This record gives sequence, structure tokens and C-alpha cells, in this order.
Amino acid sequence: MATATLRREQPQERPAVPKTGPAARLKIRRGEHSGPTSGLAPGNVQANLAILPNALAEDFLRFCRLNPKPCPLIGVSAPGDWRIPELGEDLDIRTDLPRYRVWRNGAAVEEPTDLMRWWRDDLVTFAIGCSFSFEQALIDDGIELRHFTCNCTVPMYRTSIETVPAGPFHGPLVVSMRPMKAKDAIRAVQITTRFPSVHGAPVHLATPEAIGIADIAKPDWGDAVPVHEDEIPVFWACGVTPQSVIMSVKPEFCITHYPGAMLVTDRRNTEFAIM
Amino acid sequence: MATATLRREQPQERPAVPKTGPAARLKIRRGEHSGPTSGLAPGNVQANLAILPNALAEDFLRFCRLNPKPCPLIGVSAPGDWRIPELGEDLDIRTDLPRYRVWRNGAAVEEPTDLMRWWRDDLVTFAIGCSFSFEQALIDDGIELRHFTCNCTVPMYRTSIETVPAGPFHGPLVVSMRPMKAKDAIRAVQITTRFPSVHGAPVHLATPEAIGIADIAKPDWGDAVPVHEDEIPVFWACGVTPQSVIMSVKPEFCITHYPGAMLVTDRRNTEFAIM
Repeated sequence: MATATLRREQPQERPAVPKTGPAARLKIRRGEHSGPTSGLAPGNVQANLAILPNALAEDFLRFCRLNPKPCPLIGVSAPGDWRIPELGEDLDIRTDLPRYRVWRNGAAVEEPTDLMRWWRDDLVTFAIGCSFSFEQALIDDGIELRHFTCNCTVPMYRTSIETVPAGPFHGPLVVSMRPMKAKDAIRAVQITTRFPSVHGAPVHLATPEAIGIADIAKPDWGDAVPVHEDEIPVFWACGVTPQSVIMSVKPEFCITHYPGAMLVTDRRNTEFAIM
Repeated sequence: MATATLRREQPQERPAVPKTGPAARLKIRRGEHSGPTSGLAPGNVQANLAILPNALAEDFLRFCRLNPKPCPLIGVSAPGDWRIPELGEDLDIRTDLPRYRVWRNGAAVEEPTDLMRWWRDDLVTFAIGCSFSFEQALIDDGIELRHFTCNCTVPMYRTSIETVPAGPFHGPLVVSMRPMKAKDAIRAVQITTRFPSVHGAPVHLATPEAIGIADIAKPDWGDAVPVHEDEIPVFWACGVTPQSVIMSVKPEFCITHYPGAMLVTDRRNTEFAIM
């Protein structure tokens, strides 16, 4: 999920924002960073986390492949393995996020800062791309992101669009919304099309009611942001979709990242641009 | 200008739709084809035509370079030269369009089928890309084009967006409009972005009033088409812009193509896709 708190990590708040993936993870692993990860290792991909018992993993993997826009998988572990070398040589999924949420039967039961006492040999880790990657490209192009301006979390909405089901996993697509002038919306389609593995192009624009959003001022997650008269809402498939789908299954056990406390990888956002 | 009369050239109206650029031009040159060119040499680029006295040519060239979206130049002749080899080895601009419009001081004075008695040694020919090229790519992708469905001319509107002036040339951007579902609009941005030299991505969408269009049901050129409730209007820079700008200058003499009677070139639409 793309909570937007970049501003909290601006220069005055030095010392020592870790500049690389390993440096960021080491700092987190040592307990020296427990807040949001945005701003850490600038330019590196950050990922949503879902850790499931192996009994559910195959169906969930299939669900992600069937719904690549909301569930862009950028890494999967072997069962019981806490490493995902493709995302970072030294990466230990049990210690390298600032905070986690542990769920039992669909209810959050704890929010630990590491998983040492929660780890199980049957757990499979899924790292899912997040909108940070394309947001940086939008900002670099001079496009205003309203939730950055407002220093709040991007607004997210449950839609009337159904995901493609797989095994027990099914449910509505969740979208994030960024208001823009039409000209910027067109540019944003072009830019985010370059990032198919981190949500890619918008799934909808202009007419919220057409995808079952009754009131744009009332997001289901995140914060409402103003949509000015000369702007249209632009909707992207959101990484909250897999979380929302997993929760509706109420697995006996699972783990996710704590909102805003993402997995910082060694991959660069620009690596995920197709051109 | 993208008048849409492909349907008039469907299979039942055989015999012998010319399949290549040279064949199409030869047929036109011989006076055997005097109607719209759409449907001729399928897959080949067709171009808008503007022929100006050399005294205006440099400023107009600069105008096109400053306004590439409405004026995508795909060919320019040497002064007095009726050939444009880059668009067709044998091409003779005086004979190879079905019909022309001859203008004096901003008024259409004749609509001849060739320019033999109008040609002057100081004339410079500008061939400007047209939306046929990207329309074919949209259709190939399964996107409905309403003006095709309605068998009419695409609606065009004068906007409140000013072109960048050059010498005497200045005036409002003219846009063409195609209504689409948001999903298709996003896809259409992606597809037409691949064709920067034939108008490229839309310049606007969703909010006609934001670009000075008071009533979508009243186009300034072409025909009104229905915009359904679940659709948004999508606007592309239009090749009528240079014509409209030239006419406002009221040159003592100039020549354009007759609406729908375009220059059929040897270049393929797909050549103009950047990827």
C-alpha cells in the first residue's frame, strides 16, 4: 500500500537516511528505524508483504497471476525460507521490515517489530510491487500528487469490479485515486504504462460511479483529498486488493506488513520500467 | 482531416480497390477515382495537404515544428517541386489527389481534380499526418470509433487552447473527439502514444468545458455523435488546425486537399509507430 509520508524524511531530519537497500534493511534489522519506510533507499523498489501458510500459497500465487494489476508479484520465497535473494542478497523477511501485522482467522492479533517468534516452517512470502515506484516517476515528471501535497495517505476505494477468483481468493478490486488535470492524467497514463510490474496504467478515470464508487469524498481506506473543478479522479489498481482478499478468506494464520512499513528491496524503480 | 468513410469502400463495392500507394495514385491520376480516399491502399499513411507560396513557407514550417501535435509534418517539397520522394517515388502532387481546394485571400475559389493549371514555381507542399493512421490501430485493438459506427465524419471543435504562433500563423487548436468508455480511453492513450508523428496521444479528455467547448453536441466541423452515459469524450489534436490557421491568414493564394480526398502515400502506418 502506498502511504505517502515522504515529506517526513526530508533533509532537516538527518542524520543518515540509509541510501542503499542493504543499509536500510540493516538499520531496520538493528531496531534503529521503526517508522514508515518511504524515503529510505531513494529510488529503490519497496514492496507490500503477504506471508501465508503453504496450504494457501498455491492458490494465492494463482490469484496474483490472474490479477497482475492489483497483485504485481515481484518476489516469492520457497516454503519456510525467510530469504528472497532476487530482492536482496542478505534479505531476511523475519527482521527487515520495521513492523508487521500478525493475523489469526482474519483478525489482527499483534503488530511486532520482527517475526522471530512467529515464523513457521510452512510460511511462503509474497512481495507485491507498490505504487511508490510509479509515483516517483510521476513526481519526476512534475505531476502533483495531491496526497503528497496534503501530507496524507492516498485515498483507496472498494470497487464494483471483481477480481478473477482462484481457490478461496476472490473479492472486489481496490483502487487508489489521484486527482489530476486531464493533461496530467494523459501523461500519467503514459508514464505508468512503463511500469507494468508495479500496477501499471490506470484502470479507470473520470467517472467514479461507473466502478461503484458512490462518494469520492469517502474512501474506504486512506484519506479523502480534494478534487478540484478542473480535475478528474484517476484510479489505479491498488496493493490493498490482495490484503483485502486475504482477510476475507480469514486464514487461520497470516502476516502482512504494517501500513507504510514496507519491504525495502535492492531493485531500482527504473529496472521495472519497460522502456 | 480524418473524415471517416471507410464503410463506403467495403467489399461489396468492388471491383479493384487499389492495394498499394502507387496503384491508388495512378488510379486517381487517371481520373478513375474521384471520391474519398479512405479505404485505398489499406495500411498506408494518408496525409492532409497544404500548398503555400514560398514567401509563407518558412513561417509555416516553423509553425508546424512549434505545434507538432496538430501539425505532424510527414513531408515537405522543395519550392516549385511537385514531387515528395520520401512519400512516394512517382508521386506528383499536382495530379495524385482526387480533388483539391484552391483558395484566394482566404476564400475557396475552385475545387479542381488536378492542379495542372494552378501550379506555380514558388509553391511549397506540406504533407501533414492524419488520424487515419492511429484510428486503424484503435480499431485493430477492438475499440469502437463512434463516427465509424454512425458512418459520419468525426466531430471537430475549436478550443480555447492557443497554438504557438510563428510569423503570421496563429490561432486556436482544433481537436477531434471520440467518445469512449474510460477503459478504452486509457487503452487509446497507450495506443496513440505510439504514433507521435500522426497526432499522438490525446490532448484532453473528460471535461470539454475545460478547453472551451461549450456544447459537445455542436461541433464546429464534422458531425455530432452520441456520447453515452458511461463514456467520456476523448480529444485529439486535429489536422484541421493548420487549415484553420492558414485560412485566418488569408494568403493571396494557397491550395489544400478537398475534405476526405487525402494524399495516399507509400509509407505504412506501422512505420510511424515508435515501438
